[in-house]
Amino acid sequence: MPIPPDATLADVGEFGLIAELVGLFPQGEQVLVGPGDDAAVLRVKTGHVVVSTDLVVEGRHFRREWASAADVGHRAAAQNLSDVNAMGGRATSLTIGLAAPADLPAQWALDLAQGFADECALVGASVVGGDLTRADEIVIAVTVLGACTQAPVLRSGARPGDVLAITGRQGWAAGGLAVLGRGFRSPRVLVEAYRRPEPPYDAGRVAAEAGATAMIDVSDGLLADAGHLAAGSGVAIDVHAAAFDVPEPLQAVGAATGADPLSFILTGGDDHALLATYASVDAVPDGWAVIGSVGEGSGVTVDGAEYDGPAGWTHF
Amino acid sequence: MPIPPDATLADVGEFGLIAELVGLFPQGEQVLVGPGDDAAVLRVKTGHVVVSTDLVVEGRHFRREWASAADVGHRAAAQNLSDVNAMGGRATSLTIGLAAPADLPAQWALDLAQGFADECALVGASVVGGDLTRADEIVIAVTVLGACTQAPVLRSGARPGDVLAITGRQGWAAGGLAVLGRGFRSPRVLVEAYRRPEPPYDAGRVAAEAGATAMIDVSDGLLADAGHLAAGSGVAIDVHAAAFDVPEPLQAVGAATGADPLSFILTGGDDHALLATYASVDAVPDGWAVIGSVGEGSGVTVDGAEYDGPAGWTHF
Repeated sequence: MPIPPDATLADVGEFGLIAELVGLFPQGEQVLVGPGDDAAVLRVKTGHVVVSTDLVVEGRHFRREWASAADVGHRAAAQNLSDVNAMGGRATSLTIGLAAPADLPAQWALDLAQGFADECALVGASVVGGDLTRADEIVIAVTVLGACTQAPVLRSGARPGDVLAITGRQGWAAGGLAVLGRGFRSPRVLVEAYRRPEPPYDAGRVAAEAGATAMIDVSDGLLADAGHLAAGSGVAIDVHAAAFDVPEPLQAVGAATGADPLSFILTGGDDHALLATYASVDAVPDGWAVIGSVGEGSGVTVDGAEYDGPAGWTHF
Repeated sequence: MPIPPDATLADVGEFGLIAELVGLFPQGEQVLVGPGDDAAVLRVKTGHVVVSTDLVVEGRHFRREWASAADVGHRAAAQNLSDVNAMGGRATSLTIGLAAPADLPAQWALDLAQGFADECALVGASVVGGDLTRADEIVIAVTVLGACTQAPVLRSGARPGDVLAITGRQGWAAGGLAVLGRGFRSPRVLVEAYRRPEPPYDAGRVAAEAGATAMIDVSDGLLADAGHLAAGSGVAIDVHAAAFDVPEPLQAVGAATGADPLSFILTGGDDHALLATYASVDAVPDGWAVIGSVGEGSGVTVDGAEYDGPAGWTHF
């Protein structure tokens, strides 16, 4: 039954919308029972299953005027798929819960689901279940399951003498957000990076196979997440500012806004780059840039000193 | 670090509260990595993993004046554990996400987590991960993983000639909710049934081993969920009103409110009873009551006629 373009969630109803949503989610061969029963049923082989969950709240993590529903779906999937990437695993199955006002256009929910499904398809993962309920604001709850083919890479394995390396775009989404926050739409490449991050989905397994000693995805900000690595491993981390090539669009935003363009790189979090430590430079795989070093002690410094720029993301 | 009794989430901060919360969640032996990394890591044996997710929204699924934070935690866990029960499985691991206003008392979040953990402990399941973020209203997102030791029991297996049976309290929580909605606190047994449901957690596996042909947990209402069984299986289901013993407290509420006490049983959903079909009366395990029959056709009737009482739960 096609949904009228101006229909709201209240018009379509829970079960009507669910029927449409489920049709957007192709099921992989590991899925024995997909959406529609009390639970999905997955076939798993003996091994390690990784599990992570994230909430995405309107006004806090996205604004409808800055990102389309499909963009929001891509972003919500990406940040969860990235958590599996950061363990050295591969995502297989996700659930999505949507709490939303009754007057939300049904098409917004469908576009969200399509964007979510399209992002999951990039790594071959299936959307196997969900929930839909009414709330005053939009809250999207995602849980991802993944498989590891070798031991997962934790935050706790960095050792003094290791090198710190990164792969993936870093700071682009933060630059895009800064632009949007000032009412602009360009540089378009940064705005698009904010709307649809491109996490390096294949890099996590490569890092694990290369013997990465610790790994995290950059979601709170590069320095904040380096801090999580340092705290988890009981080490100090020094980031080398000169190691970063500041891309031209970020230089342009810095010049236009008066911000240090390096601050986007050091404190931005929405690109979902991977940050990892390796026992030596020789162990770092292709595609990664060495950006720092691990030593005795605690905390994170930039070129040996405390960073005095803007802080990373905090939720409260 | 103890949290002051009057501290809010904003006072304590995301990372401070997470540190306290994680301490409330004991980890089972299947958990290789618990909360605190990018993802939890679970050890699984080859087989079927069942996955389900639910959202719980303040004002929609609970009210703080009608249930304590611990009660809300028990209920949020119970409704998810029940979904695994309804597949014939056993829950092993859960994640919980909490979106909440910055002025929420931190103690409320801690009590929620304690109630959640205590309910999970009833089935030996571990809380392995979560997320905490700010929102205007409280939204709790739960995902449960479980294991099946035999083929899961779906909604789609009921056949004409089967009998319909139920186990667990049914209608008690709806009676308690009706009482609370009128500003009363008694009958206390019903109010407590609403605040802390007692799903028949061992009955799902027993039903699967006994050859239940289809199964669902009663969360939308007995007739509504019988309707899901009927639709999933392509059959008609007739419920026999005389098969129910209306418990005394429900009779009392009916007399006091003018409601037909049977309506609580037929349309209530918060007890998480299990509804299943079996090929014959002889196949029905101890502790289940036969309450209906399966025939050719579609839809649900009560004593052969459409039910004209209040409908079950709808979300929009």
